[in-house]
Amino acid sequence: MINSFFKNEGPFKILNLINLLKIKSYDILDDDVNDIKDLINSNNGDITFFHSKNYAEIAKSTKASYCITTESLKRYLPKSCKPLIVKNVLLSTSLLTSKFYPSALYDNFDNSVKCIRQTKYNDKVEHGFNVLVGENVSIGTNCKIGHNSIIEKNVIIHDNCSIASNVIIRNTIIKKNVKILDNCVIGKHGFGFFPSENLNSRYPHIGIVLIEENCEIGCGSTIDRGSMSNTVIGKNTFLDNQIHIAHNVKIGENSIIAGQVGIAGSTILGKNVRIGGQAGISGHLKIGNNVEIAGGSGVIKDIPNNTKVMGYPAKNLREFLKENK
Amino acid sequence: MINSFFKNEGPFKILNLINLLKIKSYDILDDDVNDIKDLINSNNGDITFFHSKNYAEIAKSTKASYCITTESLKRYLPKSCKPLIVKNVLLSTSLLTSKFYPSALYDNFDNSVKCIRQTKYNDKVEHGFNVLVGENVSIGTNCKIGHNSIIEKNVIIHDNCSIASNVIIRNTIIKKNVKILDNCVIGKHGFGFFPSENLNSRYPHIGIVLIEENCEIGCGSTIDRGSMSNTVIGKNTFLDNQIHIAHNVKIGENSIIAGQVGIAGSTILGKNVRIGGQAGISGHLKIGNNVEIAGGSGVIKDIPNNTKVMGYPAKNLREFLKENK
Amino acid sequence: MINSFFKNEGPFKILNLINLLKIKSYDILDDDVNDIKDLINSNNGDITFFHSKNYAEIAKSTKASYCITTESLKRYLPKSCKPLIVKNVLLSTSLLTSKFYPSALYDNFDNSVKCIRQTKYNDKVEHGFNVLVGENVSIGTNCKIGHNSIIEKNVIIHDNCSIASNVIIRNTIIKKNVKILDNCVIGKHGFGFFPSENLNSRYPHIGIVLIEENCEIGCGSTIDRGSMSNTVIGKNTFLDNQIHIAHNVKIGENSIIAGQVGIAGSTILGKNVRIGGQAGISGHLKIGNNVEIAGGSGVIKDIPNNTKVMGYPAKNLREFLKENK
Repeated sequence: MINSFFKNEGPFKILNLINLLKIKSYDILDDDVNDIKDLINSNNGDITFFHSKNYAEIAKSTKASYCITTESLKRYLPKSCKPLIVKNVLLSTSLLTSKFYPSALYDNFDNSVKCIRQTKYNDKVEHGFNVLVGENVSIGTNCKIGHNSIIEKNVIIHDNCSIASNVIIRNTIIKKNVKILDNCVIGKHGFGFFPSENLNSRYPHIGIVLIEENCEIGCGSTIDRGSMSNTVIGKNTFLDNQIHIAHNVKIGENSIIAGQVGIAGSTILGKNVRIGGQAGISGHLKIGNNVEIAGGSGVIKDIPNNTKVMGYPAKNLREFLKENK
Repeated sequence: MINSFFKNEGPFKILNLINLLKIKSYDILDDDVNDIKDLINSNNGDITFFHSKNYAEIAKSTKASYCITTESLKRYLPKSCKPLIVKNVLLSTSLLTSKFYPSALYDNFDNSVKCIRQTKYNDKVEHGFNVLVGENVSIGTNCKIGHNSIIEKNVIIHDNCSIASNVIIRNTIIKKNVKILDNCVIGKHGFGFFPSENLNSRYPHIGIVLIEENCEIGCGSTIDRGSMSNTVIGKNTFLDNQIHIAHNVKIGENSIIAGQVGIAGSTILGKNVRIGGQAGISGHLKIGNNVEIAGGSGVIKDIPNNTKVMGYPAKNLREFLKENK
Repeated sequence: MINSFFKNEGPFKILNLINLLKIKSYDILDDDVNDIKDLINSNNGDITFFHSKNYAEIAKSTKASYCITTESLKRYLPKSCKPLIVKNVLLSTSLLTSKFYPSALYDNFDNSVKCIRQTKYNDKVEHGFNVLVGENVSIGTNCKIGHNSIIEKNVIIHDNCSIASNVIIRNTIIKKNVKILDNCVIGKHGFGFFPSENLNSRYPHIGIVLIEENCEIGCGSTIDRGSMSNTVIGKNTFLDNQIHIAHNVKIGENSIIAGQVGIAGSTILGKNVRIGGQAGISGHLKIGNNVEIAGGSGVIKDIPNNTKVMGYPAKNLREFLKENK
């Protein structure tokens, strides 16, 4: 993931970071750490994190110089990557990510916006009343933005897009020929935090929302941005009204999702997926290509390619219908 | 359906229309075609469509002069109605409907609206800040419209209605004494389109939303307008928050629908229907009078009058409770 | 419940109230009645109501001077409380509550609001464009209110709160350090009314919404205020997007509720409750502490402390998973 949206406050000295994690000092030089990234995208000079054996293969070839991990996982790391042993990898990762990207932690309203009439987009964009545009926003040609919509900071809208009224967008890239219908909220942080008695602690969401070309997003839908990766809606995928797409979800191209569907965090859907109304999909699942999920289903495990499912928990469609004649 | 809301760009010459459909030329006079309508409402000089044997009885007495249909269905048409044989009736119908009613194809924000203060409704309607009113809007006496609400073009609001704040309404008739609560979107086009790789093609929605007198529509609800017929909410029917009513749905009078219910396209509900929270009803079903649907149910087939159902798929309530003790 | 938000139009003479109820005249002095309250909170000089044997113990020690009740229940009342016998206790209670609190009956938009720039909060609150603030509103220090948000009358916001954009709040107390995300509607009346052919009659909602400190409420959520008691979100409880919390619901502290959950009226949840996405909970239930409800579940009966449930209807989690392998 290339992150041009959230300001990296680094580099920081590694001893400074180790201090923050409250772990014992290491016998290492006090070098600069440039950025915090996942195992794949880290480079020399970066710090990464490694919290589950599922990622062991990836860990073996990370280019990061430092890795937040556990005693039992550190053996998978290459010699070039110094392990920093902590109790809770995700909590420690959150702490350091907040250090590098403090602006990704909370989603207070964007105070930097101006009325579109006071921007260069006044003439370029067909816009309604009371449209607000933030900093670091780019809008292509032949776009429309409806009344009361707010394009907060860190948004790129390509050509021929139609944003309806009462829409709020931030930290999002929208490719060409996309329609966002009324009352959507796109790009806020996900529902990710560390529960703690009396005061939960949020972790930063440095991912974005990426909506590929020719998509349509129905009224009142919410698409949260990713935490360490992006939330992605594939090309020519249509979402109906009142849909919730959680952080880090990726939906393939040419998919059709009916009203009031909810997809929990980090689930990956293939292309040509069809989902009936009110279906729900749990988090961290993998849904194949050409999958059909009947309306009202509750999906709690992976679904292979070319499969039709129905039920709660969702099972093979034919089986479900036979059992429920 | 009488359509006063979408501008009919016709008449068009029949040979022109046949050309658009890319079908072989017929041995017919190049007469004018006035309008495109369904089988029942078509008159002499109109074109209609006939795609399913379910409508054979109606087809036999259509008054339309032309009918888009298939080789196997054309035998049901009267002699006065010339069949135009196509591969995909609905796709061809969509193409011609778009020709007659191009403005019904997309729902970009209404650029014609003015601040209510600059309209004749400034004094007549009790209104909040930043209320916008479009063309072809009529508002009765003793109505209220809350802050930031947008009454786009093609809306008739009868007397004693209360529209709350952040509401968007278009292509809708609201009878007297109706309450629309905050954040609703009423009258946008439905989730109807022809899926196609890389670029789905939308079909026009020339129906409207009709909300009969004494209704209440809860916060954050969406009611889509019909495609070829209307979406109707019957007299004195109350909807709770976050409900989605899809295109062409008709709900009878005195019904009560709890929060987060979703009703898919073209389903017809009788009167005195009660639906518990989060229930979902599939499309193209017929739900009788005095039906009770328990919260959370998923209805996938017709329900006769005076029936109580529960479950997913919904079945007789008593049976469901016995099986799930 | 202390009610500082809805104006009490009383006192009224008791004979006047008896007249309204269309019941036969009693041999009582025409004393003043100060207020209408529930059995517990009533004082000498108040009128109360008693409609179900479940409340018999409480009824025995009510301090109210009058009680709307039935022939069969009146025997539980103390001598100091004169029974007023009616056919339908709740309907009669609604009638008198509407007399005392007419402003709690309908939720038309608040016409008393001003642009925040014209209030004392202009400098005190970090605010966006087009923010409106009503009468009887108090906002603490270090608060933020986003664009187009409407703080209607009767709202208290404590220190360090962040209200996002397009939010509507009324009749609500928000404790310190709470975040309300975009497009929420907080504090409107609940979905409570007496169904009646042709014209349902609403009953007044004189309760409020109370959101305790450190809570977060996700985008597009709706939290309705209580009818005779309050709707309460406990300390440090986090709600995801598109959640609906009905009137009189109480949620304990440190709870986590995922997207699109709906909780029906008057249900009480304990603390440390975790609810997965799209789960629904019926009304008038009691959910214990440390309960986990899996995503998509439909809860239709009470759940004891420390229990994990799943399914529709929800049952013991282990049992559900065994049956659905």
